[in-house]
Amino acid sequence: MLIVMKADATERDIAEVERVITELGFRPHSVPGPSRTAICVTGNQGPVDITPFENLRGVAEAIRVTKPFKLVSVDLRPEKTVVKVGDAQIGGEELAIIAGPCAVENREQVFAVAETVRRSGARFFRGGAFKPRTSPYAFQGLGEDGLKILAEVREATGLKIVTEALDESGVDLVERYADVIQIGARNMQNFSLLRRAGRSRLPVLLKRGLSAMLDEWLLAAEYVMSEGNYNVVLCERGVRTFAQHTRNTLDLAAIPAVRRISHLPVVIDPSHGTGHNYMVMPLARAGVAAGADGLIIEVHDHPERALSDGAQALTLEQYEHLVSEVRAIHDVIAPAPVG
Amino acid sequence: MLIVMKADATERDIAEVERVITELGFRPHSVPGPSRTAICVTGNQGPVDITPFENLRGVAEAIRVTKPFKLVSVDLRPEKTVVKVGDAQIGGEELAIIAGPCAVENREQVFAVAETVRRSGARFFRGGAFKPRTSPYAFQGLGEDGLKILAEVREATGLKIVTEALDESGVDLVERYADVIQIGARNMQNFSLLRRAGRSRLPVLLKRGLSAMLDEWLLAAEYVMSEGNYNVVLCERGVRTFAQHTRNTLDLAAIPAVRRISHLPVVIDPSHGTGHNYMVMPLARAGVAAGADGLIIEVHDHPERALSDGAQALTLEQYEHLVSEVRAIHDVIAPAPVG
Amino acid sequence: MLIVMKADATERDIAEVERVITELGFRPHSVPGPSRTAICVTGNQGPVDITPFENLRGVAEAIRVTKPFKLVSVDLRPEKTVVKVGDAQIGGEELAIIAGPCAVENREQVFAVAETVRRSGARFFRGGAFKPRTSPYAFQGLGEDGLKILAEVREATGLKIVTEALDESGVDLVERYADVIQIGARNMQNFSLLRRAGRSRLPVLLKRGLSAMLDEWLLAAEYVMSEGNYNVVLCERGVRTFAQHTRNTLDLAAIPAVRRISHLPVVIDPSHGTGHNYMVMPLARAGVAAGADGLIIEVHDHPERALSDGAQALTLEQYEHLVSEVRAIHDVIAPAPVG
Amino acid sequence: MLIVMKADATERDIAEVERVITELGFRPHSVPGPSRTAICVTGNQGPVDITPFENLRGVAEAIRVTKPFKLVSVDLRPEKTVVKVGDAQIGGEELAIIAGPCAVENREQVFAVAETVRRSGARFFRGGAFKPRTSPYAFQGLGEDGLKILAEVREATGLKIVTEALDESGVDLVERYADVIQIGARNMQNFSLLRRAGRSRLPVLLKRGLSAMLDEWLLAAEYVMSEGNYNVVLCERGVRTFAQHTRNTLDLAAIPAVRRISHLPVVIDPSHGTGHNYMVMPLARAGVAAGADGLIIEVHDHPERALSDGAQALTLEQYEHLVSEVRAIHDVIAPAPVG
Repeated sequence: MLIVMKADATERDIAEVERVITELGFRPHSVPGPSRTAICVTGNQGPVDITPFENLRGVAEAIRVTKPFKLVSVDLRPEKTVVKVGDAQIGGEELAIIAGPCAVENREQVFAVAETVRRSGARFFRGGAFKPRTSPYAFQGLGEDGLKILAEVREATGLKIVTEALDESGVDLVERYADVIQIGARNMQNFSLLRRAGRSRLPVLLKRGLSAMLDEWLLAAEYVMSEGNYNVVLCERGVRTFAQHTRNTLDLAAIPAVRRISHLPVVIDPSHGTGHNYMVMPLARAGVAAGADGLIIEVHDHPERALSDGAQALTLEQYEHLVSEVRAIHDVIAPAPVG
Repeated sequence: MLIVMKADATERDIAEVERVITELGFRPHSVPGPSRTAICVTGNQGPVDITPFENLRGVAEAIRVTKPFKLVSVDLRPEKTVVKVGDAQIGGEELAIIAGPCAVENREQVFAVAETVRRSGARFFRGGAFKPRTSPYAFQGLGEDGLKILAEVREATGLKIVTEALDESGVDLVERYADVIQIGARNMQNFSLLRRAGRSRLPVLLKRGLSAMLDEWLLAAEYVMSEGNYNVVLCERGVRTFAQHTRNTLDLAAIPAVRRISHLPVVIDPSHGTGHNYMVMPLARAGVAAGADGLIIEVHDHPERALSDGAQALTLEQYEHLVSEVRAIHDVIAPAPVG
Repeated sequence: MLIVMKADATERDIAEVERVITELGFRPHSVPGPSRTAICVTGNQGPVDITPFENLRGVAEAIRVTKPFKLVSVDLRPEKTVVKVGDAQIGGEELAIIAGPCAVENREQVFAVAETVRRSGARFFRGGAFKPRTSPYAFQGLGEDGLKILAEVREATGLKIVTEALDESGVDLVERYADVIQIGARNMQNFSLLRRAGRSRLPVLLKRGLSAMLDEWLLAAEYVMSEGNYNVVLCERGVRTFAQHTRNTLDLAAIPAVRRISHLPVVIDPSHGTGHNYMVMPLARAGVAAGADGLIIEVHDHPERALSDGAQALTLEQYEHLVSEVRAIHDVIAPAPVG
Repeated sequence: MLIVMKADATERDIAEVERVITELGFRPHSVPGPSRTAICVTGNQGPVDITPFENLRGVAEAIRVTKPFKLVSVDLRPEKTVVKVGDAQIGGEELAIIAGPCAVENREQVFAVAETVRRSGARFFRGGAFKPRTSPYAFQGLGEDGLKILAEVREATGLKIVTEALDESGVDLVERYADVIQIGARNMQNFSLLRRAGRSRLPVLLKRGLSAMLDEWLLAAEYVMSEGNYNVVLCERGVRTFAQHTRNTLDLAAIPAVRRISHLPVVIDPSHGTGHNYMVMPLARAGVAAGADGLIIEVHDHPERALSDGAQALTLEQYEHLVSEVRAIHDVIAPAPVG
């Protein structure tokens, strides 16, 4: 922490700040400048709340320096984590592709899409049985029946199932039927859910919150890991900004930003990240070119009839085209340069 | 819903869109213009997902018209809801003041603050026993022990207790010890928690999410109400923007905006809404002047030693000054004009 | 400036950073911590660009400490500036009210509004002769003819004229006919225009840019003042955020934030700041309650026929009601507490 | 335009809205629904200001439908514009690369960078002689002397010069020495400057404003084109959001979004778009993968000593590596699919 004193702070103000720092068990290092004094604080093990210092007499600003990361950090583990899901993986040399419908609607739909996904060489199938919907009157998913259909897909195709849990009891069910627990953007700071997922044996795909700072996202992963589950995949899915030509603004700079701080793999969701069918392909290519470890893509056999998020779902043909394009880009840039 | 066709859409494209609308059970009304045709859609009972229409041939844009509000809406209930909490209330003629420390730290602290709050004439006491913290390593609250201290405060002072529940089991505990269930900003779209609160006999104070649109906030309230609990108080606590001189940007226009659509009362949180002690007073005054039904304020007997959010907590003296100022403003503007 | 070294930075990395700092004419002060070293930099007279340091080996982060304010700063001038405009003023004890139509449309309209404004006791009349419009095909204002009408209003009523200049030649014209030069939000960082206004004898009303940080806004004022014109009034008019229930999000926390750093007066524009007629009154009250030195309000004799920004303009009756309400609030809070 | 009436609007309210529409010269088409009436408006040639309708009795909402684009629109010109600059071009089959230092500092620096740029096969050289700086005390550029150095580079290397004009007199100078006029983000809505550039014979590179909506950006281009200059290149350079891991958030979805509406070419600025050296390479690749027509890149021979924006400038070696990577990606995706 760094405390910057006001230009007119007195010796006494400085002494008082030093006293409070010492009382809290830290060490103050005053550095007088030509116009004002700065006080560096050392000796803190974890993060210190800087805000109370702002109210002390003579303090102009308190600036946090140490970042409170531990298990997510490259300081702890310099090499990238490869999350293994049976014989498939995310974060390794191969580009991970996770595809499927937004919501599980019925057996026919799911199998039609799954067959195309399997044939494309993707190893992961996505589909929601529990749907977080803005309105209580919108379709909320098939629940356990949906999970059973997904388990059948796994049986029939060998695809690994990625599906969302909305609450702690949902994690119990997902553990029974699926392979990867998805935590949605709206739940990124649902700390009870994060802790429960941290006690699971399944890997966790953690979506970035709608307006999450990088630190908050990584600390959400830290919640999962602090319970003992180190298999976390981060998913950038767009953030909320003033822009209205997209549903969300896909922040691809998050990929190099995460890489610089953390060893966790990052996948990109160009479907929710844009909200428009015609943007999914160019942004999927861009995500891979920026160094993503994988993509999560919405595909539907009849997008115009989809019960949720139809506008952004690709048709089966569009999906196949996308897979060949992103693989070609992945081949060009591999081994993925970090920047 | 309104569907705008492209300038070069053919008769056939229009017919196909009309066919899909009809197939979904709605009625299309085509209005040809000089350069393009628009198709109004009627006959939908609830909200329709507009997005799938965007992918039909010849469609330029699909625009949602009907808002999916039901129980929160002034259409249903034109007069403002007054939420009763025992002999106190929020939304009535008197300005509701909810004050107390961010976190319950210990008995002494809580009683010192509570005594000042009671003496100020406020009817509600706030204090967190379960704290949602960005880092898993930060102080997480005293849990049930904290709730017990709050229950003692209620016993001793008659103040009504407002406290946050982070998950469904937390609601069980809050119901046992407190008077109003607070749902925090990070949980505004934790739909399982909203439904659980909707099945409670206690009123719910629902904070606006960090980047929640007005519609999403009202629909979160709709989740609670759709389970049968109509006693919901909305709380504006600032939203996340690019600005960095405040922790959040307090959006006071939310007060008249909610009023125009909904009968639910609105309170303002200038403490989290600004994050700085020196901003709490002017923004509290502003909230009341904008027509808020109440304020929720952080007060601490030793803000510089507070375990969470110390920078924004008022001292006991500042709090007493604030109460007299906001009451004077409330007297000037009453009966609160809607705009 | 503070430079934070990485945990694995070597002695040599630190020495190199110190060398670069010294070479630039500054003084490095290394403070070794348990896990990493921080280097405080002193000796810089003005702002230093911190970014190049980020690319030196072993550097984790470079943090700017000194703010590059000079003439706008309370360090230079602790007491608030009162901007005098003939016998009227902004920043003094009386609440300054600046009212009038968005655009000057014709003589009849302007005089109808001006008569009401004068009668209300306001001292300033606003009206645009040059309108910055998003589309080149929208009404762009009457130009010099509009200024002439405004000068007639001044003659007839004694009201001081506040009107916008869009470019350097516009400042020449505004100087000829009006009393205060308004710089619009879109031009807040039009540095050539700021410098030209800085060489004017007229006071400048400087609107905050649509997404301006506090520092950028104050430095725009610094541009004007650095040319010798110290009569600057800041105007908060809402910023662009994700929210869609308002045209802009009015950031009233800017009032105490400016106060803490600068001696310049601040007025609030609830008309552009909300974009909706029904929000102007509550937000005007809120602005005054937050400590604003004045308001700038759009009024029109026939808002439904206004050629620009009609939705937010008040009717003459609404305006008169607003003036009495905000004066009552101003009386309650005076002398305006800083927070 | 579409006007949605309130549920409780009377026949008379509807008749009054129809009357106003007719009075304005348009045609109303009322479509009664089960709960409310909508009124479609046709007959308008250009954009209509929707806002005044909001204040009429019984109106719930007024929704703009027609977009006010004309010259920028694919409706007018379906094939993409190729902007020719002598024997070079932007928008054609070849990826356009514009590279050079942020600011022209001295002859040696500029020639050192230019030699590398020429050797890489790029056709455009960038460098600022007039620098828009947030602080009046920061380095403002060499002015005309800088332009003369750039003209020497052109002479010596054949590279086309892209450089910024800050005001109308700056355009005069840029026309004398350079090949493409850059309009910076802060000036995107400096309408006097846009009009002046529209009367130039040189192509214009128009950067997106810090918080510009897509419509506003395209209408800024419309300003240039409405004066007769059709050679406009759009440049996405990141927008301002809450995120702090980057200087700006690069919005690559702007590429397909512009393509769908406009025939103008789009280039990406990953240097300002991220603000960090280590992010430039991955985001440059991403921009090309998303379908950009070109890149504008900051390169410096000694980034750690750069007088402006040093942190984001690439070294000469990094730049050469970048060019080979983005060309490989461009080869893979050509012919650039629109989505």
